[in-house]
Amino acid sequence: MIKTKTNTGNFFEDFTIGQTIVHATPRTISSGDQALYTALYGSRFAVQSSTNFARRVGYPQSPVDDMLVFHIVFGKTVADISLNAVANLGYADCRFLQPVYPGDTLKTVSQVIGLKQNSNGKNGVVYVRSTGTNQKGDIVLEYVRWVMVRKRNIDVPAPETVIPDLPDSVDTKFLGSACPTVDQIDFDTSVSGSAFVWGDYEVGEKIDHVDGMTVEEAEHMMATRLYQNTAKVHFNQHTEGQGRFGRRLIYGGHVISLARALSFNGLSNACHITAINGGRHIAPLFAGDTVYAWSQITDKTEIDGRSDIAALKLTTIATKDQPCNQFPDKNHENAILELDYWVILPK
Amino acid sequence: MIKTKTNTGNFFEDFTIGQTIVHATPRTISSGDQALYTALYGSRFAVQSSTNFARRVGYPQSPVDDMLVFHIVFGKTVADISLNAVANLGYADCRFLQPVYPGDTLKTVSQVIGLKQNSNGKNGVVYVRSTGTNQKGDIVLEYVRWVMVRKRNIDVPAPETVIPDLPDSVDTKFLGSACPTVDQIDFDTSVSGSAFVWGDYEVGEKIDHVDGMTVEEAEHMMATRLYQNTAKVHFNQHTEGQGRFGRRLIYGGHVISLARALSFNGLSNACHITAINGGRHIAPLFAGDTVYAWSQITDKTEIDGRSDIAALKLTTIATKDQPCNQFPDKNHENAILELDYWVILPK
Amino acid sequence: MIKTKTNTGNFFEDFTIGQTIVHATPRTISSGDQALYTALYGSRFAVQSSTNFARRVGYPQSPVDDMLVFHIVFGKTVADISLNAVANLGYADCRFLQPVYPGDTLKTVSQVIGLKQNSNGKNGVVYVRSTGTNQKGDIVLEYVRWVMVRKRNIDVPAPETVIPDLPDSVDTKFLGSACPTVDQIDFDTSVSGSAFVWGDYEVGEKIDHVDGMTVEEAEHMMATRLYQNTAKVHFNQHTEGQGRFGRRLIYGGHVISLARALSFNGLSNACHITAINGGRHIAPLFAGDTVYAWSQITDKTEIDGRSDIAALKLTTIATKDQPCNQFPDKNHENAILELDYWVILPK
Repeated sequence: MIKTKTNTGNFFEDFTIGQTIVHATPRTISSGDQALYTALYGSRFAVQSSTNFARRVGYPQSPVDDMLVFHIVFGKTVADISLNAVANLGYADCRFLQPVYPGDTLKTVSQVIGLKQNSNGKNGVVYVRSTGTNQKGDIVLEYVRWVMVRKRNIDVPAPETVIPDLPDSVDTKFLGSACPTVDQIDFDTSVSGSAFVWGDYEVGEKIDHVDGMTVEEAEHMMATRLYQNTAKVHFNQHTEGQGRFGRRLIYGGHVISLARALSFNGLSNACHITAINGGRHIAPLFAGDTVYAWSQITDKTEIDGRSDIAALKLTTIATKDQPCNQFPDKNHENAILELDYWVILPK
Repeated sequence: MIKTKTNTGNFFEDFTIGQTIVHATPRTISSGDQALYTALYGSRFAVQSSTNFARRVGYPQSPVDDMLVFHIVFGKTVADISLNAVANLGYADCRFLQPVYPGDTLKTVSQVIGLKQNSNGKNGVVYVRSTGTNQKGDIVLEYVRWVMVRKRNIDVPAPETVIPDLPDSVDTKFLGSACPTVDQIDFDTSVSGSAFVWGDYEVGEKIDHVDGMTVEEAEHMMATRLYQNTAKVHFNQHTEGQGRFGRRLIYGGHVISLARALSFNGLSNACHITAINGGRHIAPLFAGDTVYAWSQITDKTEIDGRSDIAALKLTTIATKDQPCNQFPDKNHENAILELDYWVILPK
Repeated sequence: MIKTKTNTGNFFEDFTIGQTIVHATPRTISSGDQALYTALYGSRFAVQSSTNFARRVGYPQSPVDDMLVFHIVFGKTVADISLNAVANLGYADCRFLQPVYPGDTLKTVSQVIGLKQNSNGKNGVVYVRSTGTNQKGDIVLEYVRWVMVRKRNIDVPAPETVIPDLPDSVDTKFLGSACPTVDQIDFDTSVSGSAFVWGDYEVGEKIDHVDGMTVEEAEHMMATRLYQNTAKVHFNQHTEGQGRFGRRLIYGGHVISLARALSFNGLSNACHITAINGGRHIAPLFAGDTVYAWSQITDKTEIDGRSDIAALKLTTIATKDQPCNQFPDKNHENAILELDYWVILPK
């Protein structure tokens, strides 16, 4: 018998606690990837947009957008972790630890840190901690994700249940790690899109990001392929047309990037996403839908040893076909994303 | 009261004569931007396409397409100048003054040079001169644009009317500024797409550019986001679907770039747009429409001190769903663009 | 009379045996082109994806995808060879001879090696050998293509019939030419997507590539413009809507690139297409269709003087809206492509 050459992905019973999975394929990020990211989302944050602006702030050159890093690190895990997933359940403890520049090569390794078979015996929840590393071996990104995965064979006995202890919010000692430390920040708010810096935001404040962005099939597919994410539901109308929604599903990360780009209007100086505490895709997005977003400041903190930058904790709600000037909450029928995260701004 | 963090754009009464506006966000152009530009329009001009060709002509490397420079310089102005615009009325005195290369960082500053409130008291015309500058402080592009902008409060009294004195045609002393001066041009017409150089064109000559290009929603939105142009009408089907046209409007500059790319067929050696005397978007373009174009040579001139290159003045008419072999004029029901500009060719 | 400035393409009677055609426009390939290629097809082969992986294998940096090189070399020929084509009939003797890196500038020259007027007197078959060369003058790609071209004037007498002698399969001495020779290959199969190397594949083996990819209009048009391929049928819905299919035709090379990207699932270590023996577009593909593919190993060979790599001969069949788990053959009603080619893998 010839062994199958084709990757059919792992099923629930293939995962074991402590298992380490080295993911294919390493990926060198280029300025071409960043140009595509700009074309797909319209991001305008000055540090990522201008090499000269970035140098004045203390970077050797413009780092690539944080969510581009996230998507590339995440994309590699799909073929091993979630090819047989029923649902993406959540994220936690996501920390951006080093800036990533064009020319850097990223790889991803995951470790299984939790398993819980569902009572129906047909599937179970797998928790993995995924680590994105650059060519120097520095960890650039680390996050935990849990996902419901089908069993290949329902007769395989359930593993011992292990549920990892995850923080509700990322330890604040990690905030700002991907931002170079400088004695005195030279962050030119006359060209960054807003005069508002960290001290101008108050806990409880709500910000409507005003604009709406309609998504096309070609856009989300190009994005998701750029990330080498191979989840079938995003690409195959022939099978999805016969499926539950009759449509290709848009990669949830595409929604996060759209919401982040929209948030420039109101948070122009929030130059980095530095941590994601948790995220939930409330409802799917389809091509033709228009994404809106608003954010609330839920906490703010200075960072030990940093006089240049400080952090805001945000909850961003994205909706589809629903303007956010009335601040619709996560229970609104048009809500599609709730994201709890930390951004950094100059002080 | 918390001050609003969101940019709602300037209204007519916010502008004053002589006012200087520094626009966000500076932008470093990369070879990725140029690759996207090629993918979006199919441009084939040899100087921009081949580094080796460009070096033989006298450039240190391939400059990026002129209209890519225009769109990036222009895109920055939208958030401050035309977010509350009723209509784009015109362009004048647009001069390309320095070549732009991948790695250059562009910023834009505008000065208000004219104001005229309309008799209805609800809106008025704002004239701005916008200047795009590279990281060395060199002006790469300068142009005047006028746009009709709504008033926030119709009770604010009208400002004194100032209408700037604008040239019908750019002063010819500026032509060719973005093209390096060389003793003897080495412009290899055996690989540039055509044997026809400056001397082969005659005033009055009409050239049909033959081909048609259909535009998709994903394309014009990716283009317009690449330029960090945030005009709402291009991106939001949810609101535009309820608007005057029921459709997203395509950025007028997208039409200019399509017409320029189509003009390669007939004007292959017109290696640079060096000045735009005036332009008018006669009718809107929508996704699914097919753009055609033709050009007439309206003038030609040698350039003082330049033995290598000379200039042709063109009027290009673009149409939708209307081939141009019969040279439809600007009053044709399918005409969408009339552009009056200068290009340079080798002598 | 003013000579027409517009390229109307060559007709059958314009070609003569031995004629050499230098094609416009030379093109410098950038990392932006490679990023777009990844976004358009989702290619994941490690050598092309990671500079660090490529260096360990012996390349100075990641080469660009083989089919991107093919499309750019091919695209230049369209304006001279196939603007008046009735049908693309076939490919033969296609050899990838040198790796191509970002920064390389490619040009294409074709020689007419065969002519045969059809008995209807209205058109004829033109055979050309096209050669892609880099800035150092090295041939990077060479292939023969034949195409049926219309006559401008049916009264022109038929030329002497010359049919070139073409190999059924590329001479195996050329295999692996674009892959650097190393004493001992360091090809890390732990991150390349599969543990299967050359020795693991058997002649006769069939591999379903599992996944399906739906194609959008914006995608195939952006791809084809990126290649500066100007064939009208891909871009103009206004005329194609009135034509035989009522639709824009997708460039056949787009299907080859999709099939190649899909083949990663089952052939992850097939790091290069090194030769194409023959190819046939069985039926057209249209936007909205979903492409699947499967491959059969039809031969395998070691390569003289190479201890590091060896070659597999494949026949890949692509289909539309038809999964390939039952291995539909070229006569299946949904088959769209049959490609006979050689790939190389580490030993």
